Amino acid sequence: MEPFVLRRRGVMLVLSSPSGAGKTTISRRLLERDADLHMSVSVTTRPKRPGEVAGRDYHFTDLTQFELMRNRQELLEWAKVFGNYYGTPRAPVEQALGAGRDVLFDIDWQGTQQLAEHARADLVSVFVLPPSTAELERRLRGRAQDPDEVVAQRMAKAADEMTHYEEYDYIVINRDIEESVEAVQSILGAERRRRHRQIGLNDFVKALREGQ
Amino acid sequence: MEPFVLRRRGVMLVLSSPSGAGKTTISRRLLERDADLHMSVSVTTRPKRPGEVAGRDYHFTDLTQFELMRNRQELLEWAKVFGNYYGTPRAPVEQALGAGRDVLFDIDWQGTQQLAEHARADLVSVFVLPPSTAELERRLRGRAQDPDEVVAQRMAKAADEMTHYEEYDYIVINRDIEESVEAVQSILGAERRRRHRQIGLNDFVKALREGQ
Repeated sequence: MEPFVLRRRGVMLVLSSPSGAGKTTISRRLLERDADLHMSVSVTTRPKRPGEVAGRDYHFTDLTQFELMRNRQELLEWAKVFGNYYGTPRAPVEQALGAGRDVLFDIDWQGTQQLAEHARADLVSVFVLPPSTAELERRLRGRAQDPDEVVAQRMAKAADEMTHYEEYDYIVINRDIEESVEAVQSILGAERRRRHRQIGLNDFVKALREGQ
Repeated sequence: MEPFVLRRRGVMLVLSSPSGAGKTTISRRLLERDADLHMSVSVTTRPKRPGEVAGRDYHFTDLTQFELMRNRQELLEWAKVFGNYYGTPRAPVEQALGAGRDVLFDIDWQGTQQLAEHARADLVSVFVLPPSTAELERRLRGRAQDPDEVVAQRMAKAADEMTHYEEYDYIVINRDIEESVEAVQSILGAERRRRHRQIGLNDFVKALREGQ
């Protein structure tokens, strides 16, 4: 009998946060460090911007095609933002999970709620919070000299988004990027070992017991 | 507003496995590495053995006292093994969890079932499996030249214990001790960040939103 290596179903890892909490940096570092983790590529009706690569940054499509996908239930979640549509195609996610690869979603609480309706057992959701209002404001102000009222609007939006922490499995307070990346790595490492994600475990234990 | 440090309720971490899967070594290394993790100290009616320290290895007691504790619901789980009673006192565990310290339990599936009845929300259960029957037999044979029938009895017992993997949250296949220790460390690291264990999170988010 060969030493058994767990085959497992992949994890749908959702990172959400109010803008300015540091989620995007955490996502980027996670993807750099973990070869089994891949970013979900959304489909969108918005025009391609300079520097964007079709199939890597987005799948670009027109409204007719988008509505067709939506009506055929081929999207796990979708949203309309500033007149453009964005969605997560179901097929590549399903394929990745089945092959034991994990998929990272950088989406908001509304997208997370839709994913949870379609795939609760696969979903692991993490909400990232800033360590303080002062730190949040510092990050939302950014380098540009934005007018105070623009920063105030961003703060109000962040305050609204924050109330949705209650819908998430895990909470990470982003005091330090490295510490937060390690926290999410632990979460992913643990969730990969959840019993319900293991494939062939029943046969393995049967073989162990029978000494095959 | 000071940077927020999550205060949390501790985790009841249960490690179970068939004998010979390597659980005891994993437990020992976890305790060495993690200052927030402490072994649960059982109460027992069996006599103290040379080298054992009361209060560290066990709380030693007599049968009358043990039955009193049991009848007063002061034990989270208990069992009778070879004529002696063993149990887990509730009070020190409750105290540790309330103070954000984690408690490690090295117990079998029956003890785990009892703990789950009393404290499902606090419980995180990990089942350790050997990588192969050959490896299990090697470990159960040990250094002593035990007769084949004794080893066969141990194997039969291990085979029986193994069927209970289905009752656990996480599965770790112990191919390599270091890898397994890191797996359980990830599980503990993740579970510490579960939303439902965080204390004062609601007030923190309220303060964040109000900019206090």
